[in-house]
Amino acid sequence: MYRAPVEDIAFALNDIAGLSAAIEDGAFPELTPDLVEAILSEAGRFAGEEVAPLAKAGDEQGARLKDAAVTMPDGWKDLYARWCEGGWNALSGPEEFGGQGLPQMLGVAALEMWNSGSMAFALGPTLTMGAVEAIEKHASEELKVLYLPKMVSGEWMGTMNLTEPQAGSDLAALRTRAERAGDGTYRVFGQKIYITFGEHDFTDNIVHLVLARLPDAPAGTRGISLFLVPKFLPDEQGNPGARNDVFCSSLEEKLGIHASPTCTMIYGDGFAKDREPGAVGFLVGEENKGLACMFTMMNNARLAVGMQGVAIAEAAWQKAHAYAIERRQGKAPGFTGEGMAPIVLHPDVQRNLLTMKALTAASRAIAYSCAHATDMARAKQGDAARHWQDRANLLTPVAKAFPTDVGVEVASIGVQVHGGMGFVEETGAAVLYRDARIAPIYEGTNGIQAIDLVVRKLPTGGGDHVAGYIGELRKDAEAVRASNLPEFGRTAEKISAALDDLEATTRFLMDSHEKGYTHAALAGATPYLRLFALAAGAAYLGRGAVASKASDRIALCRFFAENLAGETAALRDRVVDGADSLAEAAKALG
Amino acid sequence: MYRAPVEDIAFALNDIAGLSAAIEDGAFPELTPDLVEAILSEAGRFAGEEVAPLAKAGDEQGARLKDAAVTMPDGWKDLYARWCEGGWNALSGPEEFGGQGLPQMLGVAALEMWNSGSMAFALGPTLTMGAVEAIEKHASEELKVLYLPKMVSGEWMGTMNLTEPQAGSDLAALRTRAERAGDGTYRVFGQKIYITFGEHDFTDNIVHLVLARLPDAPAGTRGISLFLVPKFLPDEQGNPGARNDVFCSSLEEKLGIHASPTCTMIYGDGFAKDREPGAVGFLVGEENKGLACMFTMMNNARLAVGMQGVAIAEAAWQKAHAYAIERRQGKAPGFTGEGMAPIVLHPDVQRNLLTMKALTAASRAIAYSCAHATDMARAKQGDAARHWQDRANLLTPVAKAFPTDVGVEVASIGVQVHGGMGFVEETGAAVLYRDARIAPIYEGTNGIQAIDLVVRKLPTGGGDHVAGYIGELRKDAEAVRASNLPEFGRTAEKISAALDDLEATTRFLMDSHEKGYTHAALAGATPYLRLFALAAGAAYLGRGAVASKASDRIALCRFFAENLAGETAALRDRVVDGADSLAEAAKALG
Repeated sequence: MYRAPVEDIAFALNDIAGLSAAIEDGAFPELTPDLVEAILSEAGRFAGEEVAPLAKAGDEQGARLKDAAVTMPDGWKDLYARWCEGGWNALSGPEEFGGQGLPQMLGVAALEMWNSGSMAFALGPTLTMGAVEAIEKHASEELKVLYLPKMVSGEWMGTMNLTEPQAGSDLAALRTRAERAGDGTYRVFGQKIYITFGEHDFTDNIVHLVLARLPDAPAGTRGISLFLVPKFLPDEQGNPGARNDVFCSSLEEKLGIHASPTCTMIYGDGFAKDREPGAVGFLVGEENKGLACMFTMMNNARLAVGMQGVAIAEAAWQKAHAYAIERRQGKAPGFTGEGMAPIVLHPDVQRNLLTMKALTAASRAIAYSCAHATDMARAKQGDAARHWQDRANLLTPVAKAFPTDVGVEVASIGVQVHGGMGFVEETGAAVLYRDARIAPIYEGTNGIQAIDLVVRKLPTGGGDHVAGYIGELRKDAEAVRASNLPEFGRTAEKISAALDDLEATTRFLMDSHEKGYTHAALAGATPYLRLFALAAGAAYLGRGAVASKASDRIALCRFFAENLAGETAALRDRVVDGADSLAEAAKALG
Repeated sequence: MYRAPVEDIAFALNDIAGLSAAIEDGAFPELTPDLVEAILSEAGRFAGEEVAPLAKAGDEQGARLKDAAVTMPDGWKDLYARWCEGGWNALSGPEEFGGQGLPQMLGVAALEMWNSGSMAFALGPTLTMGAVEAIEKHASEELKVLYLPKMVSGEWMGTMNLTEPQAGSDLAALRTRAERAGDGTYRVFGQKIYITFGEHDFTDNIVHLVLARLPDAPAGTRGISLFLVPKFLPDEQGNPGARNDVFCSSLEEKLGIHASPTCTMIYGDGFAKDREPGAVGFLVGEENKGLACMFTMMNNARLAVGMQGVAIAEAAWQKAHAYAIERRQGKAPGFTGEGMAPIVLHPDVQRNLLTMKALTAASRAIAYSCAHATDMARAKQGDAARHWQDRANLLTPVAKAFPTDVGVEVASIGVQVHGGMGFVEETGAAVLYRDARIAPIYEGTNGIQAIDLVVRKLPTGGGDHVAGYIGELRKDAEAVRASNLPEFGRTAEKISAALDDLEATTRFLMDSHEKGYTHAALAGATPYLRLFALAAGAAYLGRGAVASKASDRIALCRFFAENLAGETAALRDRVVDGADSLAEAAKALG
């Protein structure tokens, strides 16, 4: 059973990502180290003792649809109520509407724990938080006052409605339409798919944010508007009133996250018999500026998905480690006990376990560093704020893609460590392998993240920003070297080699892009993102190990540097030398 | 829907693995190129048109247990009957007992196709073929005459009963016991788990091969005997007679291969009320020599599982490729058509597809080369036979582990190419990701394969055998260079670099092992096996490309060499430099 790794999380927040320094620096006046510790411990307790025990039933029962109503698994509605009572939904919500307004770093750390407990459960609140952010930043004061207090407390939940069958990665192809009703409201018509928590029995009302086109909208992404469409229209007291014309028509049968209802939503089909057809919607932001509203929350949403990767990896590592200590098979070198040796003593199993643990730690370090940049952008002003916003923008695609790829890899290794037991659903290793698989796909596929990194983020400041970032990571390598601790082995050398690869490929891709060799830049994006993450991860683990000097942190950092970071050489090769052969071979693909 | 890649398979058999040369050389007097083509085409037709269409229902319905009887999915019993009628079960069975006695290479090629059609279906016959092999090699003439004709035709099926809860990878821990009945027969008592096709409704009888201990057996693996335990004891006409005391007590709920019943089998619990308790068993081979009987069929069983990896990868590649041609999203460089571009034109999607295709091709080349070695060992005499047997022994762990790892990787990329659709079960990409996951585990985990390769196979002939093998692969690199075809780009150079890495790590691991640095050898085994496979795969694809000179084969080989083979450098690093940091970090694992 999952036990929140509060110490590892605090270490990554404070000693790697810079939380304690930021607190000392006065960036978060409301925070003290004690408060941080208290929040992490209590969130960890809730995730481990309340959420995790219901995960299995959730996977087995799943969310069930009948007559447009979705029933959540046994015990889940009650769990959600306890979650709201505990104030967890309000953790990073705006203070003006009842939230605690805590920094992103803490929100993200808590999110990791909820997702390790149950990714299917954590998804609901994650979507609500995204909707809160969009409403807070772009909606009218009237809408905010009406909806935000209930959404921040968790009394109502929120959803994001983007995807349509023909419009997934490419939102320009959206067809859902909205008509002006003449009274300032709109009527929305269309079908949306893959709507997470689009319907459920957790709350009395559900607040849908829906992208749609006005009749006179320009084509493409410049003609998309954002609408708030509640399941029930609030009455004069602000309570759920008339049923709106939005219904869930089906649930997807999915590989994983079975308890998270993935809905097809039908807007304006006339199912609400007592009204004219059309779902009543309220404009959020300006007409035709809907995509910009989405973009302002995209960084946070992407980081939130990245946390799912970290979370699954952590849960998989814990489960495999516990099993490897328990399970006995064969003889292991150096084992002198009775009978068979615990498999944790077999070097090949150790390689698997350490790979899981090291990749998890590196993913966490990258994700928390991204959250730190967002926090600093909010805490600072002027150039400093801009610098940190650039940093958050740079790290976001990496923090989304790498941890979610790692989630799949680590969950797969986790199944392997369990042997035959791993393939049996009862063990609980397989569900992580199933759940993990969605995270590299949604909220922008990892391929799109990589292209975003190369095409939009690297050019920031003419390349100065990423150069400065690599410079900071070089200081970490230097600090490892300067520590003169023999336990680091060849760590400093290996981190430096990875950073050399990062520097060379960064230059190569920027040159390619500037010179119009778009194909090379696009073809190299995915290996580049992984290279970026491995180099940054190695440097971050070095930073933490130097700060803590704990022998296990040094040893894990060294394992990462000497066993995993070396992949950057092959990735560099792929980026710099791979595009031509890719283009040639692709001719046969049709 | 899966369409058997008969041309690719024939190419890998003939131009890479050496089938056509062997036929010319007279190694298979019964075979002609025409016959090979006819068999491949017809097997491909059956796999694509008969097996594949029932795969989905099999996954959804699964095998169901009621009152110790297992019902297979709708249509499956009939499918199996057609399979037997077509003579497919007898393809590589011994001629003496009604089989066609075709070379392993053809058996393996057909097996790939059945597994691409439905891995859950192909598993049953695979187990039967293993049981046939064990009985043919080790059982008494009486048992052979009674059982083999029916098992070769497929009228009865067979199973392998090795695993017990405490004895998975470590068979020394077996507890199932057998007692001498005094009449030459035995009574078997105990529980076996993970028994594939242990119970089903395909056939009137099921022939279990069971490992058990005699009361006076020595401890460990030298005290294990092999017994034949039929579900129904044959009557005097050889038809199913009295019910034996062996029953299926439960089915595992598994991540994948749902239609393959994975049974817990209870022997001798007295369920057969009309008899004394104890399952009637017949000794196969000598008492206490059961494990040796198993070992003689282990190579083939491992290769058969390797084929599952190739098969899943092929099916996943085909599905993703078809989807990428159909699905349109966004703009792609160079696309001048109307509206959105097919995603197959996006370089990042192309990288995914080509990685799938190239890994599949390399896996297939390795697996077929392994089958070729087995065939040659049978066809030749004396030193030549010994040479080819050494080759088969060397390649078997690689042919089991690499393709099954590739199966998981490629199926995962396949889900990714489908985007959100990939996570929805209906699409059929997810089931491949689920099914694939067992193959790296059973028939000896891939970690155990890697250790087998390093500890038992490399030392063959004092290392001369593997050195000779690497020498052959170097000739392939040289042939690419000597072809002087500019389309090969840097292929020759890259294959040579991979072979340098293979040579260096081979020497390092053999030295370590000989000098007693067992830890370093065990810790490096898994990265070494992958390095071995990437280097061999690159050389094999080079061999085929030189032979065929077809532009698409050259381009795919070049893609593999320039984009994928470069991983060997990092793997070499991991093998040579990774063990110390692994040992240090492992101290914290407990």
